[in-house]
Amino acid sequence: MIDFSLPDDVVELRDRARAFVADVVIAAEPRDRSEHGLDEGLRRELQGAARAAGVFAPQVPRELGGLGLDTRGMAVVFEEAGYSILGPQALNCAAPDEGNMHMLHLIATDEQRDRYLAPLAAGDTRSCFAMTEPAPGAGSDPSMLQTTATRVDGGWSITGRKWFITGAEGAAFAICMARAPEGATMFLVDAENPGWRIERVVDAMDRSFPGGHAEVVFQDCRVPEDAVLGAVGEGFRYAQVRLAPARLTHCMRWLGLARRALDTAIDRAGEREAFGSKLAELGMVQERIAQSVIDVETSRALIWQCAWALDQGQPARHESSVAKAHVGEAVGRIVDRALQICGSLGVSGDSPLARIYAEVRPFRIYDGPTETHHWAIARRAVRDRERARADVRA
Amino acid sequence: MIDFSLPDDVVELRDRARAFVADVVIAAEPRDRSEHGLDEGLRRELQGAARAAGVFAPQVPRELGGLGLDTRGMAVVFEEAGYSILGPQALNCAAPDEGNMHMLHLIATDEQRDRYLAPLAAGDTRSCFAMTEPAPGAGSDPSMLQTTATRVDGGWSITGRKWFITGAEGAAFAICMARAPEGATMFLVDAENPGWRIERVVDAMDRSFPGGHAEVVFQDCRVPEDAVLGAVGEGFRYAQVRLAPARLTHCMRWLGLARRALDTAIDRAGEREAFGSKLAELGMVQERIAQSVIDVETSRALIWQCAWALDQGQPARHESSVAKAHVGEAVGRIVDRALQICGSLGVSGDSPLARIYAEVRPFRIYDGPTETHHWAIARRAVRDRERARADVRA
Amino acid sequence: MIDFSLPDDVVELRDRARAFVADVVIAAEPRDRSEHGLDEGLRRELQGAARAAGVFAPQVPRELGGLGLDTRGMAVVFEEAGYSILGPQALNCAAPDEGNMHMLHLIATDEQRDRYLAPLAAGDTRSCFAMTEPAPGAGSDPSMLQTTATRVDGGWSITGRKWFITGAEGAAFAICMARAPEGATMFLVDAENPGWRIERVVDAMDRSFPGGHAEVVFQDCRVPEDAVLGAVGEGFRYAQVRLAPARLTHCMRWLGLARRALDTAIDRAGEREAFGSKLAELGMVQERIAQSVIDVETSRALIWQCAWALDQGQPARHESSVAKAHVGEAVGRIVDRALQICGSLGVSGDSPLARIYAEVRPFRIYDGPTETHHWAIARRAVRDRERARADVRA
Amino acid sequence: MIDFSLPDDVVELRDRARAFVADVVIAAEPRDRSEHGLDEGLRRELQGAARAAGVFAPQVPRELGGLGLDTRGMAVVFEEAGYSILGPQALNCAAPDEGNMHMLHLIATDEQRDRYLAPLAAGDTRSCFAMTEPAPGAGSDPSMLQTTATRVDGGWSITGRKWFITGAEGAAFAICMARAPEGATMFLVDAENPGWRIERVVDAMDRSFPGGHAEVVFQDCRVPEDAVLGAVGEGFRYAQVRLAPARLTHCMRWLGLARRALDTAIDRAGEREAFGSKLAELGMVQERIAQSVIDVETSRALIWQCAWALDQGQPARHESSVAKAHVGEAVGRIVDRALQICGSLGVSGDSPLARIYAEVRPFRIYDGPTETHHWAIARRAVRDRERARADVRA
Repeated sequence: MIDFSLPDDVVELRDRARAFVADVVIAAEPRDRSEHGLDEGLRRELQGAARAAGVFAPQVPRELGGLGLDTRGMAVVFEEAGYSILGPQALNCAAPDEGNMHMLHLIATDEQRDRYLAPLAAGDTRSCFAMTEPAPGAGSDPSMLQTTATRVDGGWSITGRKWFITGAEGAAFAICMARAPEGATMFLVDAENPGWRIERVVDAMDRSFPGGHAEVVFQDCRVPEDAVLGAVGEGFRYAQVRLAPARLTHCMRWLGLARRALDTAIDRAGEREAFGSKLAELGMVQERIAQSVIDVETSRALIWQCAWALDQGQPARHESSVAKAHVGEAVGRIVDRALQICGSLGVSGDSPLARIYAEVRPFRIYDGPTETHHWAIARRAVRDRERARADVRA
Repeated sequence: MIDFSLPDDVVELRDRARAFVADVVIAAEPRDRSEHGLDEGLRRELQGAARAAGVFAPQVPRELGGLGLDTRGMAVVFEEAGYSILGPQALNCAAPDEGNMHMLHLIATDEQRDRYLAPLAAGDTRSCFAMTEPAPGAGSDPSMLQTTATRVDGGWSITGRKWFITGAEGAAFAICMARAPEGATMFLVDAENPGWRIERVVDAMDRSFPGGHAEVVFQDCRVPEDAVLGAVGEGFRYAQVRLAPARLTHCMRWLGLARRALDTAIDRAGEREAFGSKLAELGMVQERIAQSVIDVETSRALIWQCAWALDQGQPARHESSVAKAHVGEAVGRIVDRALQICGSLGVSGDSPLARIYAEVRPFRIYDGPTETHHWAIARRAVRDRERARADVRA
Repeated sequence: MIDFSLPDDVVELRDRARAFVADVVIAAEPRDRSEHGLDEGLRRELQGAARAAGVFAPQVPRELGGLGLDTRGMAVVFEEAGYSILGPQALNCAAPDEGNMHMLHLIATDEQRDRYLAPLAAGDTRSCFAMTEPAPGAGSDPSMLQTTATRVDGGWSITGRKWFITGAEGAAFAICMARAPEGATMFLVDAENPGWRIERVVDAMDRSFPGGHAEVVFQDCRVPEDAVLGAVGEGFRYAQVRLAPARLTHCMRWLGLARRALDTAIDRAGEREAFGSKLAELGMVQERIAQSVIDVETSRALIWQCAWALDQGQPARHESSVAKAHVGEAVGRIVDRALQICGSLGVSGDSPLARIYAEVRPFRIYDGPTETHHWAIARRAVRDRERARADVRA
Repeated sequence: MIDFSLPDDVVELRDRARAFVADVVIAAEPRDRSEHGLDEGLRRELQGAARAAGVFAPQVPRELGGLGLDTRGMAVVFEEAGYSILGPQALNCAAPDEGNMHMLHLIATDEQRDRYLAPLAAGDTRSCFAMTEPAPGAGSDPSMLQTTATRVDGGWSITGRKWFITGAEGAAFAICMARAPEGATMFLVDAENPGWRIERVVDAMDRSFPGGHAEVVFQDCRVPEDAVLGAVGEGFRYAQVRLAPARLTHCMRWLGLARRALDTAIDRAGEREAFGSKLAELGMVQERIAQSVIDVETSRALIWQCAWALDQGQPARHESSVAKAHVGEAVGRIVDRALQICGSLGVSGDSPLARIYAEVRPFRIYDGPTETHHWAIARRAVRDRERARADVRA
């Protein structure tokens, strides 16, 4: 039956995560000077503090040392982690590692788990997911995949160019999607493999992902047979398995960041005066605050609904598309309004908003631009309606 | 724990209501020629059919002959009822009767229940709620209440003018809010009481409410002591008790109507061709469909969340404000997009959209204009944030 | 050189038209009880008054008894006429007659001028333009034209079905677009011709067009050779000649109506109090007023720019598309905001807004839906940019 | 009479400026590595090239070595300059110098002209305008001015703190607004004056202003009597003289930058394929392009109208508020849509969009946030309407 309550243990963990972010992570923000994500030292320090605070790796299965949350629990706790840009890294629930752990847990062989998943779950390594390609390859339309995998003696040879590969710099391994004769296939490629290299790190607006977004080149990159993740030819199917939850956990974290922006604006509006009133008493400011509250609450409700569907074992492709499209736009609006309320303070480095503004803009593009999701949602709506009418006629 | 599932009996009732609306109510729509709501004959006919189909009075307690749904069940079934403008009347869950039944059930004395609530629940009578006043009286700001109630021998004398009193024409009684010396108070006033009269029925855009919206005048209207509903001076508190759920059930019904508009547009888009494609294959049309799907799903999620809160016994003032503000605007957008997709067909009487367009516009004003809710939401957000910061400092 | 000034005679005529609308036309509004446009008696009365006031037929050439304004002068005066729904009819500058006069003036033979244009310009007759067809015919995509014209002894036989033909009921003649072997062709068809009939008047949201919008059927409708308007096969070209200015004059009139809505809201906001302030002092209301002022001013600027281009003899297809797309949406927003500011008064017949709301909604669809214009604007922008780059490379 | 044509000499200058920006300025963009505006060497180099190309200082009076454009001519040429972030600096028409030159030209004594204006017009120096203060001082509400000027022997002593003072770092002098006993007064303060210092340069989102935005402190800053600019006590009136045109020239330049973003997106949409079509053929992309074209054209029309009003000697406070509010928002939308069309390319440094996105965001705040203009526009609209009604009653 419809229920929006949270179990006590999730409430406790949420409160613990909230306090940890407020007391430890936000306090560390001024020390974050790295160009991409946390520098390794600060990352380890914060992860250690998170472990000590009992909030480390909340989504990781207990047998791998995590707190074993289901997707609904993740929705609650990741939102808290996202309240600071550094929070997800501190809790080891940042993209792309979090999505990679999820997929490895579902698909990897025991050997692959030991070798790749265990150190990732412990925060000892980082990883990347190499799917997107520069034009004319696989961008928002994965069917345009151009990287090839051909069988060679003792394994495979991968050749192709990938773009916007988050976290490649510094990753211990890549999960690379390539087109084998049997269809798209995923391969585990070690960082040491000389067959691929990072050509450059893209100068992107956001800089909260460790390693940034890299352009990488695979050139006759040789991998053994057991580097195949899952079954040959099933790459797109696995990508779907990864995409819906990965897209949703993005929403969770970014919703937290949007809440941070909103709180920053409310605090400012309660202090700053203009035209004889506090900003918080001016109707135009109140309207922006209210619209942002509504954006937060609709976003959270869609996230929870999709999380519930995933926990029921549903593929949740529709739910995750709807959530991604709405939350991406809503987060953008919330941050934009917050910045506007704060005026020139908002566009300066004296408040966290200018950076948050740059961080969240790509979210409307990453993991499927809003328009791609709109297209998918509409096609599904038309098809469902045609079926419903056919049922009535039958 | 977060749960979006529905119990089997609610699913069955939903499906029954959906089929009843599709087969019986929509079929009756062309016979609805009345200027305001259903004419009495068609109303009784459809209510009889609803009773036979097992979908009558879904929200009414079982002891009064209803189906005894809680608020979450209402959310599901009222949305189906709202799919036709005539549905809520057929199921006896239309405003203002539905809200009045709810309040009477909570507050009325046994005698008042027998006399007013029982026949209302059975569909034998209609009622109205007389609170809103013309300027400079109580509009969106109830504190401006000007109608007075003064003690006279054996009871009270009520004097004042009310405006936009839905369903007054044809109502068996009014619940009238007036300012007594102890504060705002509610009175039950019979239709036969010569102390009040309907001055006119306002020529409003919408015409689905039986009796329309009337301007009524109370002139030394004498009522006995036992006409007081609940306690003297507690009128505003009761109004709050009524308002949150009444506002939410409006959202439920109107969401159903918005879905009807969207389905109408999708059907049209799947048939009509322009520029060499079906409309449903054009990106601009797809975007409008997708945005409407998202509006439906965010609306439903907020309604369910507020319904759950009410079922927990929470006052849900914040939740109902957020839901009303969002759903009102979302419904307006959905219907507007549907009409635009359908082109000149949409603005003609050949499709149901032109009427739906006129019906839903006032929803952004009734039960508190969007702006009033924005104001309340913002003030609450600022206050909550101030408290949270004070807690941290403490 | 860029100039936004008006010549003295246009200013005088504008002020005269403004006063006439305020004093005579708005005063007559309560007498407008007809279901479609003005009834014949009131139309003649107001046209007589307009003639007496020196504001009749401002766009008609002087040799035909009008005031001979160019398009820029029309922009100024039509906006004033549009301030009342009845104004354009009173001044004999309403659609579709105004556009038909324009086209006849450009294309008709002397005989056709005497027979059709002169009485139309004098307000003695009305006319209609029969182009749009029901699905799967010519809707927003004129190339789907299905009505045929075949040569018969002594002339032509026209067969087809037309839809949403504004003013057909009561028109002295129709200008009918049909597909001849040589291409789309326009024909002048007298009302008395037994080969066509009005099947019904569509029940549309708007009701300010005399005769409403009819569905008409041409069945082997015989017309003589001299019924061809202009040259055979040139119908689409003439339609373009008519469409750009006709679309623009729609914008002019509707902008006037939007200003009426805005003024109505400002007046209300200056009187009505809520929450301790006049509405006009509340930030949310102020923001809506300001956004509407901006919508008025951007709309007027685009209209003036397109009018200037037309007066230079340019086809102004781009300018009229941009103006139509923007003004249509802007007018819709202005009226919607006005209604929201006025609250339940706005949705009642006690203010003119509810009717204006229904009148302007179809404007976003008539004369090309916004989306069709967006499509045309984008294609032109892409093409222009390709050319500019090719020029640079050359 | 309404006219949108340009005189031949303005067309020639526009084309020359366009070619100069395309060939010289854009080519220099990759060399712009400075954190704030152009470094001094590149600035001088580009200004020299502009002088050689006959496009230097287009707004400066001819007697000071400029091209002597009126405001309408500036509207045309500044838009071209703005097409590159570096263009306005190259042409010596960037803020805040351009506005300071305008004000000095109107108010300065001959000695002040020689000393401050002449080298500024020649590009030999830069300047700043020190009005805005940190909370609780003069932000968007100038009446909160807290910096004081008191009479001392031989002149004045200025004390106060200023914030977001654009171009202070590196400026040869500041125009400082302070509260004298007679009212707000402007003072010319040399960079060498030891009574003021730059405390820090604010880390703002935008970085195209030479010198960035500084926080500066005036501490018993002594200036002689002839440092007063204009008359004592007239500071706010002069600020108005400066503000309307300065705000409008901002709009001109930023409109050019928005056009650059739009062209970038159109170019990309014409090349990149997804889902079997070029992006430029997808409806959702076409709609964004069309909306941006409309935003460009409405913006330009308002700018031209306000420029015309200023050229007529009107104060144009209303026109410049309307233009600023609309153009600021429109530019933001155009750039946002362009970035979205370009996808992950757009958020990377591989396209100019990410930087443009950061550059234009503050424009909705600088020179009066949109909301402040909305407030002013609404108050004026209400007042004008009250007067119009009073006239009718009189």
